[in-house]
Amino acid sequence: MTNEARPRGVAILGSTGSIGTTALRVLERQSSRFRVAALTAFSNVALLREQAERFRPAFVGIVGNGVGEGDCWNVGASCLVEAATRDDVDIVLNAVVGAAGLDATIAALESGKRVALANKETLVMAGSLVTAACRGGGGEIVPVDSEHSAILQCITGRQGVDIRRVIITASGGPFREWSAERLQEATLEDALRHPTWRMGRKITVDSATLANKALEVIEAHFLFGIPYDRIEVVVHPQSIVHSFVEFVDGSVLAQVGVPSMELPVLYALTHPDRVPDSGLQPFDPVGQSPLTFERVRLDEFPAFALGVAAGRQGGAAPAVFNAANEAAVALFLEGRIRFRDIGAAIANTLDALGGLPGDSRAAILAADSAARRFVQERFQC
Amino acid sequence: MTNEARPRGVAILGSTGSIGTTALRVLERQSSRFRVAALTAFSNVALLREQAERFRPAFVGIVGNGVGEGDCWNVGASCLVEAATRDDVDIVLNAVVGAAGLDATIAALESGKRVALANKETLVMAGSLVTAACRGGGGEIVPVDSEHSAILQCITGRQGVDIRRVIITASGGPFREWSAERLQEATLEDALRHPTWRMGRKITVDSATLANKALEVIEAHFLFGIPYDRIEVVVHPQSIVHSFVEFVDGSVLAQVGVPSMELPVLYALTHPDRVPDSGLQPFDPVGQSPLTFERVRLDEFPAFALGVAAGRQGGAAPAVFNAANEAAVALFLEGRIRFRDIGAAIANTLDALGGLPGDSRAAILAADSAARRFVQERFQC
Repeated sequence: MTNEARPRGVAILGSTGSIGTTALRVLERQSSRFRVAALTAFSNVALLREQAERFRPAFVGIVGNGVGEGDCWNVGASCLVEAATRDDVDIVLNAVVGAAGLDATIAALESGKRVALANKETLVMAGSLVTAACRGGGGEIVPVDSEHSAILQCITGRQGVDIRRVIITASGGPFREWSAERLQEATLEDALRHPTWRMGRKITVDSATLANKALEVIEAHFLFGIPYDRIEVVVHPQSIVHSFVEFVDGSVLAQVGVPSMELPVLYALTHPDRVPDSGLQPFDPVGQSPLTFERVRLDEFPAFALGVAAGRQGGAAPAVFNAANEAAVALFLEGRIRFRDIGAAIANTLDALGGLPGDSRAAILAADSAARRFVQERFQC
Repeated sequence: MTNEARPRGVAILGSTGSIGTTALRVLERQSSRFRVAALTAFSNVALLREQAERFRPAFVGIVGNGVGEGDCWNVGASCLVEAATRDDVDIVLNAVVGAAGLDATIAALESGKRVALANKETLVMAGSLVTAACRGGGGEIVPVDSEHSAILQCITGRQGVDIRRVIITASGGPFREWSAERLQEATLEDALRHPTWRMGRKITVDSATLANKALEVIEAHFLFGIPYDRIEVVVHPQSIVHSFVEFVDGSVLAQVGVPSMELPVLYALTHPDRVPDSGLQPFDPVGQSPLTFERVRLDEFPAFALGVAAGRQGGAAPAVFNAANEAAVALFLEGRIRFRDIGAAIANTLDALGGLPGDSRAAILAADSAARRFVQERFQC
């Protein structure tokens, strides 16, 4: 990779978000290997303009309104697919939040691109469709989630790899030690105070409910083809061990390091190779000691078990879980429901709609819409 | 590997010791893939006879005296090289204690065999000769030490792997928390009480002095071609993380699991593949929590820094370090010197003989003998 003449073109969908800005820091350091070919954002015009001026991509797109005078930008939701399928794009970093990223992921895979996937929701809602697009178009999905990047790093380059079990780590979020009673009173401010990771608001709330960890279990199932009964989750408050993989001989590998999304982003670009990079704070085991592990408190964090059960159920259930969660978190972020209502909203929606079919894009999108409507109608005050 | 018709032949040198008996347990489970072709022991006739009757190897050798009537065994030190170079042997597990294993390692490598090396002393005393034999004869060395097996597992299958740093873990031994004053009074009984690993007496004492960890640093240098300034050691009392590897992009992999030599033995046989095996107790992060890491107390455990310095010095210095340590530990095991004298014996011997040349087998063996004589003459009461 080091000696490649032409830097590979990267499209960043969601460039003004947490993952997008992290990716641009990585790409700035790695400009001899990668060039920014396309940038898209949802609505942050000022930051997108700054990024466009700095990185000079051939394509700039904005999904929402608010495009300024004099910007030759592509406007509207279609800019995601446009950016993802351009000829000068080799790698699509999909860091769009939520279900809106689905079509771009599928289009990129069908065009034979590598998709560096930070948008786990698309894999959760439509795992079969996405993996089929991957097989059909010759593309590949490389995870940007730190846990899945850890798993990929542990299995890369193995001959005839045979995974017996993966153990995904979870920080446990801000409410890890809260009693069931205290959780009843948790506020938005409490939920946004994540102990180890700085991320966007939606995923931060998902970490507080552990819905995020259920999404990651489903994501691991589709990314690596691992049956659900071989995927475990363990709470690891320090977020230093990013996941474990146990092989058929009983040996276990882990990927560890200081929490930073720069490595998963970089590795998604360079996999299966590694390139020298100075961005990561060096790992110091003594400085990080002790590393502790705890079981997930299933009763206190119902969204976790609901999500894993939806994954096992299949059909549209994962899409319904994801959509109900997105809708409930949006209401929570707007201050319209309480923290404890999120789990109840997911449970009720899955009860009502979890059995819907999920065998086509149309069926999945219908289930997704039905679940969002269900939550909005029943739960907003 | 699963579908290979003919099981691969394994010679076990040192079959009645701790590693040898562990290996036979593994081979019994993996008898469809491996067969015991040769067994040798130093002096434990009764156990060797039992093993020979059970596994029926074509070759049985005993180094020392005491062979019984009616045993058609090969007697004397030459049986090691004989066993290691037989046509029906594909893999030589060298679990001989100390310098006595050198010729068999070199002969096996020159015959193109895989050497599963538990006899780290031979790599320490004659690293350049052993690696040259490996290159010349087309053989390969696969480590059986748990730490080096961990490193190998972390780097296996990487394309263009680029290691930035390895961090070898050390249990810290039974004296990890002892004060400098209390260490002055440490007894043989104290030294043999290892907290996490059950091993032979010599290596158990080496773990108490941390001389073992210096041997492992030198071993890692020769096995993986890593410069000394990229090899670190960290104390990890639980012996769950067997070592870390940091790559050029800053990512760190670790191999973890319950302490057991069965995995390093099995992996040395199957590398780069893995085969299903039920021998290992499954890893449970919660059950092993917390994992802690500490710095090495260099002043209290002088053998460690002396050994690493000898490695850096090169020439015959590593052989002198190893021989002085072996001689001093033998005297300690016989009750003829005190625990604290081991470090002093190594230091004095290196001062006197560390500058000897080490550019040939003869030079290394001469330095080895000189160092042993030096310790015996100066330190036995």
